[in-house]
Amino acid sequence: MKKLSSIFIFSLLSLTMSCNDKKEAQSVAPKNNNLMEEHNDINRVEPPNWWVGLKNTELQILVKHPNISEATPEVSYQGVTLKEVHKADSPNYLFIDLHIAPDTKAGKFNITFKQDNKADLMHTYEFKSRKKPSEDYIGFNSSDVIYLITPDRFANGNTSNDINENLLEKTIDRSDDYARHGGDIKGITNHLDYISDLGFTAIWPCPLLTNDMPQGSYHGYAMTDFYEIDPRFGTLEAYKELASKSAEKGMKLVMDQVANHCGVEHWWMRDLPFKDWVNHQSSYEGTVDNNYKKTIITSHRRTTNQDIYASEIDKNAMSQGWFVSAMPDLNQKNPFMANYTVQNSIWWIETAELGGIRQDTYPYPDKDFMSRWAGDIMHEYPNFSIVGEEWTSNPLLIGYWQRGANNRDGYHSNLKSPMDFAMQEKIVQAFNEDETWDEGLVKIYEGLANDFHYPTPKDIMVFPDNHDMSRIFTQLNGDIVNTKMALSYLLALPRIPQIYYGTEILMNDFDKPGDHGFIRSDFPGGWDGDKINAFTGEGLTEAQKDMQLYLKKILNYRKNSKAIHEGKTIHFAPQNGIYVLFRVLEDETVIHVINKNQSSMLLELGRFSEIGLKGRAVKNIISGHQFFWGDNMTLKEKGNVILTTKLK
Amino acid sequence: MKKLSSIFIFSLLSLTMSCNDKKEAQSVAPKNNNLMEEHNDINRVEPPNWWVGLKNTELQILVKHPNISEATPEVSYQGVTLKEVHKADSPNYLFIDLHIAPDTKAGKFNITFKQDNKADLMHTYEFKSRKKPSEDYIGFNSSDVIYLITPDRFANGNTSNDINENLLEKTIDRSDDYARHGGDIKGITNHLDYISDLGFTAIWPCPLLTNDMPQGSYHGYAMTDFYEIDPRFGTLEAYKELASKSAEKGMKLVMDQVANHCGVEHWWMRDLPFKDWVNHQSSYEGTVDNNYKKTIITSHRRTTNQDIYASEIDKNAMSQGWFVSAMPDLNQKNPFMANYTVQNSIWWIETAELGGIRQDTYPYPDKDFMSRWAGDIMHEYPNFSIVGEEWTSNPLLIGYWQRGANNRDGYHSNLKSPMDFAMQEKIVQAFNEDETWDEGLVKIYEGLANDFHYPTPKDIMVFPDNHDMSRIFTQLNGDIVNTKMALSYLLALPRIPQIYYGTEILMNDFDKPGDHGFIRSDFPGGWDGDKINAFTGEGLTEAQKDMQLYLKKILNYRKNSKAIHEGKTIHFAPQNGIYVLFRVLEDETVIHVINKNQSSMLLELGRFSEIGLKGRAVKNIISGHQFFWGDNMTLKEKGNVILTTKLK
Repeated sequence: MKKLSSIFIFSLLSLTMSCNDKKEAQSVAPKNNNLMEEHNDINRVEPPNWWVGLKNTELQILVKHPNISEATPEVSYQGVTLKEVHKADSPNYLFIDLHIAPDTKAGKFNITFKQDNKADLMHTYEFKSRKKPSEDYIGFNSSDVIYLITPDRFANGNTSNDINENLLEKTIDRSDDYARHGGDIKGITNHLDYISDLGFTAIWPCPLLTNDMPQGSYHGYAMTDFYEIDPRFGTLEAYKELASKSAEKGMKLVMDQVANHCGVEHWWMRDLPFKDWVNHQSSYEGTVDNNYKKTIITSHRRTTNQDIYASEIDKNAMSQGWFVSAMPDLNQKNPFMANYTVQNSIWWIETAELGGIRQDTYPYPDKDFMSRWAGDIMHEYPNFSIVGEEWTSNPLLIGYWQRGANNRDGYHSNLKSPMDFAMQEKIVQAFNEDETWDEGLVKIYEGLANDFHYPTPKDIMVFPDNHDMSRIFTQLNGDIVNTKMALSYLLALPRIPQIYYGTEILMNDFDKPGDHGFIRSDFPGGWDGDKINAFTGEGLTEAQKDMQLYLKKILNYRKNSKAIHEGKTIHFAPQNGIYVLFRVLEDETVIHVINKNQSSMLLELGRFSEIGLKGRAVKNIISGHQFFWGDNMTLKEKGNVILTTKLK
Repeated sequence: MKKLSSIFIFSLLSLTMSCNDKKEAQSVAPKNNNLMEEHNDINRVEPPNWWVGLKNTELQILVKHPNISEATPEVSYQGVTLKEVHKADSPNYLFIDLHIAPDTKAGKFNITFKQDNKADLMHTYEFKSRKKPSEDYIGFNSSDVIYLITPDRFANGNTSNDINENLLEKTIDRSDDYARHGGDIKGITNHLDYISDLGFTAIWPCPLLTNDMPQGSYHGYAMTDFYEIDPRFGTLEAYKELASKSAEKGMKLVMDQVANHCGVEHWWMRDLPFKDWVNHQSSYEGTVDNNYKKTIITSHRRTTNQDIYASEIDKNAMSQGWFVSAMPDLNQKNPFMANYTVQNSIWWIETAELGGIRQDTYPYPDKDFMSRWAGDIMHEYPNFSIVGEEWTSNPLLIGYWQRGANNRDGYHSNLKSPMDFAMQEKIVQAFNEDETWDEGLVKIYEGLANDFHYPTPKDIMVFPDNHDMSRIFTQLNGDIVNTKMALSYLLALPRIPQIYYGTEILMNDFDKPGDHGFIRSDFPGGWDGDKINAFTGEGLTEAQKDMQLYLKKILNYRKNSKAIHEGKTIHFAPQNGIYVLFRVLEDETVIHVINKNQSSMLLELGRFSEIGLKGRAVKNIISGHQFFWGDNMTLKEKGNVILTTKLK
């Protein structure tokens, strides 16, 4: 009864409001909030809240509660229309479609679930006000350099959350590369100064959502709740604090999301709303005993997304197979799953005021859905950024996924930023190979030439390595000079660079090359009692300190370099082991010279006369040394020179 | 005087004709031919003749004669207007622009060169009738398989032309891989039955034009006269006979042309019409002593054609450098050179009724000119075919050059057929590599997937090898079964296959791998007295005979296989070392199965149910064995199976 009377009053108020003019309504609405009695009878309602003032005025709410399908939901809130209620295959779900009129006010209201011969259930739902307009969500771009972090391995800022007895994996063990180590959100927040001082302008932590998996949960890619921060990483408030403190320092927060799959221990796996909510559901036995062997694994044959000759069975095997047996493949062809995923992304953008999304395993979900997903987000936030992971060294595939591609099959991708695994591979080859006609530096010269194919090369993300591959210092066989050249080249490109945490202190995986758990080693200084502390420099070798300083200088120059962010690129074919690249915008010219010769070389500058630098003063970004661009330049032994015409 | 009076009569006749109606003119014109007195006072006039009835009504004639620039040319022929006369930098050239009205009749006429204080010079020029309309020039296409021949090395049909004392290289020596061996046009013509019986439907002989070079002239790519068949290969009549006899057997003749360069001993190198007729002319000393070292060689950095970041100096170094020091780089930006080259191609198409052109070193000339060149030809002959050579394994570049590409720089290529060096490389890798996740058969599966990028994949030329690379049998390390699989796979693709002479008898270069002169070894039986004769089979090993027969069966099946020519392609990702490709058109399905396992394998056919073959009778193209497509199929040890639903 109490519930009934409450909704009655609310309805009456709404009715009254509709008779008044808008100004009056505005003054009444907030008061209404205060009158609101909150209810939480329903097990699960997702998204847990929403916002007024979004471009998309439709919202689909998932409701999960025992036998909820027998109830009839009702909503009464000015501007909100309950358009349709959908039952699922399971009796314990309802999907409620709401239309939110553009002038709807923020506030709370109850959703009433009327039941025959039973008391009604109620759930109080909230429409929040937006913190800023859509246009102000500025995503990462070529002016940024992104610091990629494996949160469990960066810094343990809050030891009280290391173990959570309510979750399946209960131990931490820093001696086990595949166990949790205790790193968390607070650990990142505590060290934002370090990251910002180095010159990074964006942070991409690997997923922070709950991974309630019995083992290997540290990496975060087996999500078991898409709306919850993993308690071992912190709280939603901690995540919002990370976002706001990052923003204060001018750093964007990029969220790592996964549309393709969830962890097999996801709460819905015990009671799926629809028979086709995940693909190959029938192969999954619903056991929680780590025995997921019956599942059908994806073929990983990603070219089926583009291949005009691919068989149907291969296309389905790729798109519908499970990523691994512990990660069920979500079926984005189910329209409720599709809406769920889009709304989940928008919920996080609004909640944490994100500066971008990194989407995992981009070519694995249904590609038409991915186009819709990215399109819906970019429509809502025109200045936002999404980077999608396709692990391919084939520029044809990289180009295919980028927004603006002239794909012959008519596929319109709405993805602004694909990843440049192609250039990553070429960069490693360029420095590891001896110089010959078709090996060595020519690999990056010709690799970069492939940019002619891309709609917007500067929106592509490039990186020396990431959390899934050997550390760049390892890939370059421990050659510090080559590592410096690779990093500085990459930072001079028309790209969005991403650098993995610890690269600045030469972290490596020589002891277990390519071992994922080991690649993601603890950042020294992130744990109380660490003897080496890379944040303070304590215990670092000279080589490590030198690399930290080297990157710091380049990153801080790059931060304000319009020529690198937006400038024209001109490069000259490698000759005699020397490769020169220019970035030019108005008065600023950045000159990047790579010399792979062991000996000093005299570089004739006449070859570069078309750049028009003759007689201009240039400054070495690293040493600060200034000189005039003349007829030639002496290059010291193997190494690179980064010059700028911007002297201050 | 005689000349003067002749032109006077002719002019008068023209004048009279213009007053009569057309019918009368038509009856008069042929008679005029008979009245014609022929003159040949001029050293060189190119093109040596032309045709009436071409779509392009403009003709630019090059005239070379001592001090001809001082003369004033005059032409009087009904329908022909002398539009403009251009002097060159050298006094010994004139370029005459003629407009040929559409209804102009075939016939001969004199060009009079009036000279002050000297007797006039005269040259009789001929406009021929065309042998067939433009639409009937049908170029090679995916219904064809092309037999590539190095003419000097295939068969010596006429020993009397082996040595020509008027040319610089006067010796033949079959024991020297880089000397001439005596093969010629007559040698090819004599063996057309052999080629046709094998199942080839087109022939591409490497260049047959005069290469009056002091050494290494056998390969033909250093042309010293673009209008003359090399006397050591035969005469123009012999070439026309090759064309007509090929046509009688249903085989197209493809001419190998070179727009990029000439031989340094080209006649014009001693007196260039323009200072910019060839690039870097000033670097050429004009000596004929084999010392061409001062020339500036191309950088061969072909990506400068596409690279949006390429420096101007690199673009020019690529496009304007000489191919090698013995091959001057023709400057197609000189409009007279441009016209010369287009007209030369059309002259050969009309003269020999060509079935296609193979254009050498496609990315080396000015690319805008190449677009015009191919466009002019394709405009004149809409059903013609041109294949251009760019040696690249980068599908981006292959796609860039094909007609219909959506190039971001707006470049419109008019080239129908690029070459597929990418698939060539993948095919070799597929069979040489052991099967792993990303090696072996997956190389061709994913390589073929790149077809999504190409405007018209079936117009691309694919090949197991060519005259510039190791023989396929050598590349596949002498593995006969792998060679068979590579060849049959290639012949089943949606492509235009090209096979190099001798592949059918396992010719190889094991003794000097990659050595060009050795790759182009003599075809056994092409010379009188050869102990081994591949034409008759005499002296061939069983393996050679088997390969000949194997190719013959596949080629002759392919000749009439609409499914291979035009059909839909469906392939299935390699599994367990087995890769299956289908070609389907209406009732005909061709099934190509590769089994790389050393042992017999049972192939479950349920995976291929989408092809709809269950219960249909299929025939093995090689063995003739027939059976019904059921639930599974036993594959013998390593090898392939080619099946068809076409039983007769």
